[in-house]
Amino acid sequence: MELHGGNIYKLKREAGIEVIDYSANINPFGLSDKLKKGIVDNLCVLEKYPDPEYINMKKIIADYNKVEIDNIIVGNGATEIMFLYAKSLKPKKVLIISPTFAEYERALKSTNCHTEYFQLREDEDFILNISRLKKTLDKNYDLLVICNPNNPTGKFIKKDILDDLAKFCMTKDTKILLDEAFIEFVEGNLKESILEYRNKNIFIIRALTKFFAIPGLRLGYGITFDKKLKEKIELSREPWSINAIAELATKILLEDDEYIEKSENWIRVEKEYMYKKLSNIEGIKTYKTETNFILVKLINGMKVQEFRNKMILLGVLVRNASNFNYLDDTYFRLAIKDRINNTKILGCIEDAIK
Amino acid sequence: MELHGGNIYKLKREAGIEVIDYSANINPFGLSDKLKKGIVDNLCVLEKYPDPEYINMKKIIADYNKVEIDNIIVGNGATEIMFLYAKSLKPKKVLIISPTFAEYERALKSTNCHTEYFQLREDEDFILNISRLKKTLDKNYDLLVICNPNNPTGKFIKKDILDDLAKFCMTKDTKILLDEAFIEFVEGNLKESILEYRNKNIFIIRALTKFFAIPGLRLGYGITFDKKLKEKIELSREPWSINAIAELATKILLEDDEYIEKSENWIRVEKEYMYKKLSNIEGIKTYKTETNFILVKLINGMKVQEFRNKMILLGVLVRNASNFNYLDDTYFRLAIKDRINNTKILGCIEDAIK
Repeated sequence: MELHGGNIYKLKREAGIEVIDYSANINPFGLSDKLKKGIVDNLCVLEKYPDPEYINMKKIIADYNKVEIDNIIVGNGATEIMFLYAKSLKPKKVLIISPTFAEYERALKSTNCHTEYFQLREDEDFILNISRLKKTLDKNYDLLVICNPNNPTGKFIKKDILDDLAKFCMTKDTKILLDEAFIEFVEGNLKESILEYRNKNIFIIRALTKFFAIPGLRLGYGITFDKKLKEKIELSREPWSINAIAELATKILLEDDEYIEKSENWIRVEKEYMYKKLSNIEGIKTYKTETNFILVKLINGMKVQEFRNKMILLGVLVRNASNFNYLDDTYFRLAIKDRINNTKILGCIEDAIK
Repeated sequence: MELHGGNIYKLKREAGIEVIDYSANINPFGLSDKLKKGIVDNLCVLEKYPDPEYINMKKIIADYNKVEIDNIIVGNGATEIMFLYAKSLKPKKVLIISPTFAEYERALKSTNCHTEYFQLREDEDFILNISRLKKTLDKNYDLLVICNPNNPTGKFIKKDILDDLAKFCMTKDTKILLDEAFIEFVEGNLKESILEYRNKNIFIIRALTKFFAIPGLRLGYGITFDKKLKEKIELSREPWSINAIAELATKILLEDDEYIEKSENWIRVEKEYMYKKLSNIEGIKTYKTETNFILVKLINGMKVQEFRNKMILLGVLVRNASNFNYLDDTYFRLAIKDRINNTKILGCIEDAIK
């Protein structure tokens, strides 16, 4: 069982099989042409150490998010940001809204803290029940971890609800770690981020990985309004952790309005299409998504291992979601890609669940 | 004062000055043509997550060093390897042979251990005095840190001496962290590595950064024969820390015999040339080097800050070496580059020390 999706390498090594990877949630438009050209024209950046302070990179990210350079922490993917945050905050008791991305727990456990889960329930369609959460928060947590939109459920908590939750957390002295790695796929996206409240209590994680289809490049960042925490993180980080091509790519990608608009238009249409089509297939239950992946439950008695294997033979890798907390061996997660592939995959699913 | 050399970004930002960077010790041949072509032809690797196990990459590194995959740990530059090693070994009392690269101490201090220094003495020309070291090692250290060849002194400890030292350390239960980031520049280089003894007690750090002129790419590795330590490190590492272009570059670079031979031939000639020419300049003392940088002491009463500023105005950035342990404000370090630049820089030094 894989902790994460997308180990296409292992599949190829061990079974010699090449598949369409629906287990990794990456923008199907792929690398932008501007980035390709930018890299080819600037290969010489590799011959120099990156700027140890990453000032230009931070400036571009700050401008994109309408905050100041001092609010930005850059990282070798969102993963590094997560580990840096955990190490610097050193929370003792953490509540993770779950099922969710496994890496929060790994990052937090590396600092030996105690973690508990708040369960998103299937009978609530995995939608966050705020009043139930508030009751749980009475138990004095140092930190609440929220993935928004949430991986693997695809659910998104609206800004006003999050703001209310953040205010409640302030009264309990509970900080919030908010992972917005997929927020660019949400309709109205950045306007829906809680960022504008500039809440000292909330640490926001972002990545360019998914939306700009650069998981191989490793480029994430954190946004904080907590000056002391920021200083602590900068002191504990390893030097030059972001490579020079990621540094170069930041400007090219965040200023590429054409790619951004094209992607927003695609996901708006395609997530509805996939939800509608999947909902019509018998033997599975599909959960409505607000981002570029979708959670599905087998309700015909088939186990996900069997389904996943059948899909591999049909040339598609889906994400077995049974190792997410609270999900059993009937769940899988699908990326949403372009129409041609999506149509093909829908056909494969119909064949596989027979 | 900079902790490291080469902050050409700050210089440009704050003073608007572009300089030839003699403060960073990078192979002047720059990016190999094969690597340039390899990257341009394979930009699509950025669209996928790197192999989380980095199996192919490890295989190539293992073959290059004639060891097994299980002996190799890959990292986002040598820096990540260093921090992973410190975190996993958690030594309590460490002896660092010094003056040396500052990052060992930073990595070790991040685990709250106690560090002491063994001084390489100027009156011994910074050559390691083994019997003096052995006496110091009687004081029961968990770990001895050696940079070989040593940055900034350029001195290299021969294999037979190191092997003898390693055996002595075994009797004291003192492990050795051996940083060989510059070993490819040493004559006879890899044959001079202590690697062949496959000593469980010695952890070797390597990087492709310097020799293949890719500081922007972030690509380092560790070699260990301690199975338990290896497992501990693999468990604690952050996933996907090495980017996909570094993964791709490993094969291209380590198999590029032409680039390797050309570089070996260049450094053999050029380090002798630089030493000879520098030795002839009055007002400075030059220490013989066995790698691609050279330590110099001002002996005409001038301070390194003044000298460095004069050099900047002449268009050259040298490394102020006064923040290395045991070096005062009369030391600087120079990279060794190609003959045209080296000749120019020699002229600048003669002008600057007047």
